[in-house]
Amino acid sequence: MTGGKTMHRSSQQRTELSELGEFGLIEHLTKDIKIKHPSTVKGAGDDAAVLDYKDNQVIVTTDLLIEGIHFDPLYTPLKHLGYKAVIVNLSDIYAMNATPLQILVSLGVSNRYSIENIDELYSGINLACKNYNVDLAGGDTSSTVSGMIISITAIGEAKKSDIVYRNTAKVNDLICVSGDLGGAYMGLQLLEREKEVFKVNPDMQPDFEDNHYILERQLKPEARKDIPDLFRKIKVKPTSMIDISDGLSSEVIHICKGSDKGCKVYEDKIPVHPETQAMAKDLNIDPTICALSGGEDYELLFTLKLKDHDKINTVPGISVIGHITNKNEGMQLVTRDGTQIKLTAQGWDALLR
Amino acid sequence: MTGGKTMHRSSQQRTELSELGEFGLIEHLTKDIKIKHPSTVKGAGDDAAVLDYKDNQVIVTTDLLIEGIHFDPLYTPLKHLGYKAVIVNLSDIYAMNATPLQILVSLGVSNRYSIENIDELYSGINLACKNYNVDLAGGDTSSTVSGMIISITAIGEAKKSDIVYRNTAKVNDLICVSGDLGGAYMGLQLLEREKEVFKVNPDMQPDFEDNHYILERQLKPEARKDIPDLFRKIKVKPTSMIDISDGLSSEVIHICKGSDKGCKVYEDKIPVHPETQAMAKDLNIDPTICALSGGEDYELLFTLKLKDHDKINTVPGISVIGHITNKNEGMQLVTRDGTQIKLTAQGWDALLR
Repeated sequence: MTGGKTMHRSSQQRTELSELGEFGLIEHLTKDIKIKHPSTVKGAGDDAAVLDYKDNQVIVTTDLLIEGIHFDPLYTPLKHLGYKAVIVNLSDIYAMNATPLQILVSLGVSNRYSIENIDELYSGINLACKNYNVDLAGGDTSSTVSGMIISITAIGEAKKSDIVYRNTAKVNDLICVSGDLGGAYMGLQLLEREKEVFKVNPDMQPDFEDNHYILERQLKPEARKDIPDLFRKIKVKPTSMIDISDGLSSEVIHICKGSDKGCKVYEDKIPVHPETQAMAKDLNIDPTICALSGGEDYELLFTLKLKDHDKINTVPGISVIGHITNKNEGMQLVTRDGTQIKLTAQGWDALLR
Repeated sequence: MTGGKTMHRSSQQRTELSELGEFGLIEHLTKDIKIKHPSTVKGAGDDAAVLDYKDNQVIVTTDLLIEGIHFDPLYTPLKHLGYKAVIVNLSDIYAMNATPLQILVSLGVSNRYSIENIDELYSGINLACKNYNVDLAGGDTSSTVSGMIISITAIGEAKKSDIVYRNTAKVNDLICVSGDLGGAYMGLQLLEREKEVFKVNPDMQPDFEDNHYILERQLKPEARKDIPDLFRKIKVKPTSMIDISDGLSSEVIHICKGSDKGCKVYEDKIPVHPETQAMAKDLNIDPTICALSGGEDYELLFTLKLKDHDKINTVPGISVIGHITNKNEGMQLVTRDGTQIKLTAQGWDALLR
């Protein structure tokens, strides 16, 4: 993907929402939905969806994406936004070691958006449903005073014995993470920088060369569907798991606090992509800070029994970054020079100032 | 309830959201949650809720409530708003002839709201959970640029054979409605009128005398939990059902279109409360229009086999308002003077203009 097209998004055709109205819009959005799972007894088109999960447990999660907070319409193509809105929810289901099967989509839009815009958004939602094999099983549409709001609920299933919670880590467990961290945050910083350039000179083409990886991490994240599959394949069950949506630091703290434990995380073990490192250098930001506090990476953080070390050590793309300790040892980051620093959470606090 | 207090809502204490931050807020909101149902295996506090519905089917619905569209903070006490946000979702579950058991709450708030405000909102959410015996099983919190957004997902269960859809009405079925219609809309008109008075003269006390019923219909609606219970008690299963959130007209059309049928609805059979009629007269609005297009009544509209007429006829608070016909007879309102008028839907189209 290149950002240039995004900033100069053209709209050949514009059909006003008022031409279709609420019921017309729902019909328009749901007419081509094909149900993939036998457990989706009834999808869109009634007061509620009906699901049949006879032998397994049901996993449900929900997330809000709000214009101006979670996305900036200036540089977020609507198709990518739709895709990402689904992904962030599926990520929560995978983080329970479960399989997502259905989503419900509630959409709020102002009349600034046309039917073509909403079709673009749904093309991303539908693509995510296809790629992750989930059914779009209903939802709700509404108008807003201004801007767009997307609320997605994902529903999944798992065998009771397979489900992994975040509050069940034990002392000496290994702390592991999938993929690499901080890339989505660096992608966002890059987009913000180019937005400032664009404000001053709208004819300037944004400079995204050599930064495709971090842009994709920000604009088109993927959920780690493969990780629960991997656990089944190598016959490992994590002792705890959480998805990394708010930065590594917050998530490690969630696991430790939930499990009433401490931890040691080693700075030199935290996986950071070379492109993330290069951009961090460019922008004069410490790449470790990006990984710890950046957020939106949608990787999985999990703990494993020490005895599973050899099984996971051979798997490419999984990093062992530390271990769980007694609570009284605290939650520590061990820096490259061996200094111990207390881990602190950030989340979206900054936004509320 | 009187509206006077609402318009002059005092805030003795104000704790800024930034004092708690996202994680502090979640902890604050979830610390006193008590789980009521064994099917709620895991509630708030992980990536997702885990539910166990072994023998029954799972019913899921979701709804968005947006400040400035679905509620006006000037005259909506936050406790009532929280209560109503839950009710509108439970109503969808009852409309499937099912029992709600859990809700997930996603909340977006700007820093215009304090912790005390959010506690007030949650006191309403918790009261609804108590009154309707459902577990608050998780959710999400977020900041907004301005205003409040509440997205609620409700999850319920039902025996497969008990579930009632909206697209299964048959020719000659009776069309029935619970309670009375148009009251919530008249309550809203009254609040809007007093808001205009308040704008001109903020010291003027709003005049809500003799209008407690329609104000309650707007500000503190209830979901018809008792109706599915009633069906079980009198051993009746509706042939179709939907909840009345957008006005009688839209909902009758949903049932007819979904079932590929027509209908005759008799104006003189549509139940309208005396207080609704009086206010409609005051404001020079046809009370039938209020019932047909008003919305937010959260009553249940259902169809019954003709043979069940005697069973339902003895039940107070249920009105038989017409019957299902062949599709080619169209969807007709028969007015008091015997004229037939084609039913038309309205929904929130007006808002998108």
